[in-house]
Amino acid sequence: MNRADAEALDTRDSLRAFRERFVIDPDVVYLDGNSLGCLPRTTVARLEGVVDQWGERGVRGWDEGWLELPLSVGDRLGEAVLGAGPGQVVVGDSTTVCFYKLVCAALDARPGRTQIVTDLANFPTDRYVLEGVAAARGLDLVWLDGEPESVTPLIGPDTALVTFSHVSYLSARIADMARVNQVVRDAGALMLWDLSHSAGSVPISLDGDHAPLAVGCTYKYLNAGPGAPAYMYVRRELQAELRQPIWGWLGRRDPFEMAPGYEAAAGMRGFVSGTPPVLALAAVDEGVRIVAEAGIDAIRAKGIALTELAITLADEFGIGVASPRDPARRGAHVALSHPDARALCARLIERGVIPDYRRPDVIRFGFSPLTTRFVDVWDGMVALRELTAMGAPPGSG
Amino acid sequence: MNRADAEALDTRDSLRAFRERFVIDPDVVYLDGNSLGCLPRTTVARLEGVVDQWGERGVRGWDEGWLELPLSVGDRLGEAVLGAGPGQVVVGDSTTVCFYKLVCAALDARPGRTQIVTDLANFPTDRYVLEGVAAARGLDLVWLDGEPESVTPLIGPDTALVTFSHVSYLSARIADMARVNQVVRDAGALMLWDLSHSAGSVPISLDGDHAPLAVGCTYKYLNAGPGAPAYMYVRRELQAELRQPIWGWLGRRDPFEMAPGYEAAAGMRGFVSGTPPVLALAAVDEGVRIVAEAGIDAIRAKGIALTELAITLADEFGIGVASPRDPARRGAHVALSHPDARALCARLIERGVIPDYRRPDVIRFGFSPLTTRFVDVWDGMVALRELTAMGAPPGSG
Repeated sequence: MNRADAEALDTRDSLRAFRERFVIDPDVVYLDGNSLGCLPRTTVARLEGVVDQWGERGVRGWDEGWLELPLSVGDRLGEAVLGAGPGQVVVGDSTTVCFYKLVCAALDARPGRTQIVTDLANFPTDRYVLEGVAAARGLDLVWLDGEPESVTPLIGPDTALVTFSHVSYLSARIADMARVNQVVRDAGALMLWDLSHSAGSVPISLDGDHAPLAVGCTYKYLNAGPGAPAYMYVRRELQAELRQPIWGWLGRRDPFEMAPGYEAAAGMRGFVSGTPPVLALAAVDEGVRIVAEAGIDAIRAKGIALTELAITLADEFGIGVASPRDPARRGAHVALSHPDARALCARLIERGVIPDYRRPDVIRFGFSPLTTRFVDVWDGMVALRELTAMGAPPGSG
Repeated sequence: MNRADAEALDTRDSLRAFRERFVIDPDVVYLDGNSLGCLPRTTVARLEGVVDQWGERGVRGWDEGWLELPLSVGDRLGEAVLGAGPGQVVVGDSTTVCFYKLVCAALDARPGRTQIVTDLANFPTDRYVLEGVAAARGLDLVWLDGEPESVTPLIGPDTALVTFSHVSYLSARIADMARVNQVVRDAGALMLWDLSHSAGSVPISLDGDHAPLAVGCTYKYLNAGPGAPAYMYVRRELQAELRQPIWGWLGRRDPFEMAPGYEAAAGMRGFVSGTPPVLALAAVDEGVRIVAEAGIDAIRAKGIALTELAITLADEFGIGVASPRDPARRGAHVALSHPDARALCARLIERGVIPDYRRPDVIRFGFSPLTTRFVDVWDGMVALRELTAMGAPPGSG
């Protein structure tokens, strides 16, 4: 295996033309699209268009499409990425706020049950939200030590809510969504998925796998920009039963009546709180459109090929792999382990290779199939080999 | 009084040059800057710059200023607009979410007290949030029927929280902030102000008036764009005592440690929840910079002159005025009352005059001193006179 082999893989890549539709620094090997995805060129034009609309139409823009964006972008995202039929996804607020809203909604729908189950592989913001809600309500937070599929013994009649990340932000391990949903449903509890590392990188079938609830961010594989808003999925048959805790004017039946007495709008509009972030929603829409055009199956196939190449090289170079070796159980990033991970990441960045460091010993290489080439995997892994061969840098560890 | 008189007022206007720094449709009389402010030309360039930074720097942008934006923009806003010293304002989330967070924080800081006091002049989203929180916690929501300064008899040892809008979204009446703060403080309760209609239009002195808590939006007189993020103010001496309910990773001490166990960051960072909306924060920054450059005193003086002109013309034309006649107690918009208000607003918009309709009988003319000319007031009022002289349109009322 050499660099020419990687170049040959790029030549045969059916998605190779998509890279040209993003702004990418040619001097950088960007392996962090799972933290912040690249800028789509169409987003530049789309944002200019929305800014122009603000300038030209002012407040009239609200009646000319802006008010519908949380639901219209949500529907597009649901269809192209989440395996969710229309009317079940809404975009707006941060992932943290979305997660909080659905946690509270789920707990309110299971009164008398005292336990929330999660694990340390869930993304930190989710864990902190759960800590806060559990403390405020006097509930027990039960930590699973194991894979999500082994949660069964922890679930029972006291379980109100179970929540995991679908693809682990650390290891990239994919949970068996259908199986976990079934176990949780059998116990009468509600399951809430964090899809931040899966949406746009692996197929998701919320409807088909009988998922009740999900949230996720849009600035990773959906390429919607720094701090872009997140989304909530609430399964249709639960929408009337669940009520989110932040009763804002745009979640009210006829918000512009402005009358006393909150009454939640029907469907997903009732899960909206404040005024929608129009510019940010337009950027989400563009990111989703590109993923839809490429197709999640082609993205998934390339994600497997990219991570397989990285793991093959890691083995060859003697670098530890902390992600699943079974590609069917691995998302589109690879966790590499090394005792000097922190210092190595800093050195990689100096060389123009951009990974993520995750404590204590993980170098995370994120491969975004629409923008990452096979030669990027090669160049990143070779740079890492060279640095590890040089020995531990002073002061590292 | 004729149109030439209004033009003469524009000629003498010390702020007249600022209008050229905004994108404004010359064929429209835009009297809705208190709903959605105009687009600053510098914002166009600033947003392009942030989008470029996303494209060129990717995830590295977080260490190159993005992470600081909620607090750095908050400090600028505090100094230029809110009368707040540094370290007390943070920008991010919608007004609804910010309001919810501070309501919960205040109630948690006054355990055992069972009442929340507000009024129907508070903006609807605030009222709905209070309804939701009161229902969730089993608290009593007490409605003041009268002006905020007459709240004293409703407040006592059971009062946890009092909240009003500083400038009423309907009448534009300005509450006496220092006096209300004093009354609420004397009862041991906490006061929370909604500044959405005052920030950028009238002077505010949160520090000087001993305000404990405030929120407000940035898309009105701060011209930050549709759905721009809101801000929270927490008085310095309360920051250690208050804890907001949505424990997210970016409000944690050292978020990138990603370790188990939430521990709020010190100061206003502890009031942050999710990932900051970078593009939107840059737009807030630009809007605040223009207000800072013009100066709130000059903005306030012109706001008074614009509303005085509108009221003089309303009296002359026989149109009802539902805003205070004392300019010291009136913000920068004017509520005009008419039984056919809804139909009249629709007709005004057809003529290129953009007001707001508010049920049941209010035509709201918003004057944004950086962009509204005296001839705009003249043209808007004359258009309204002509429509009212034509009699009630068919099907109106």
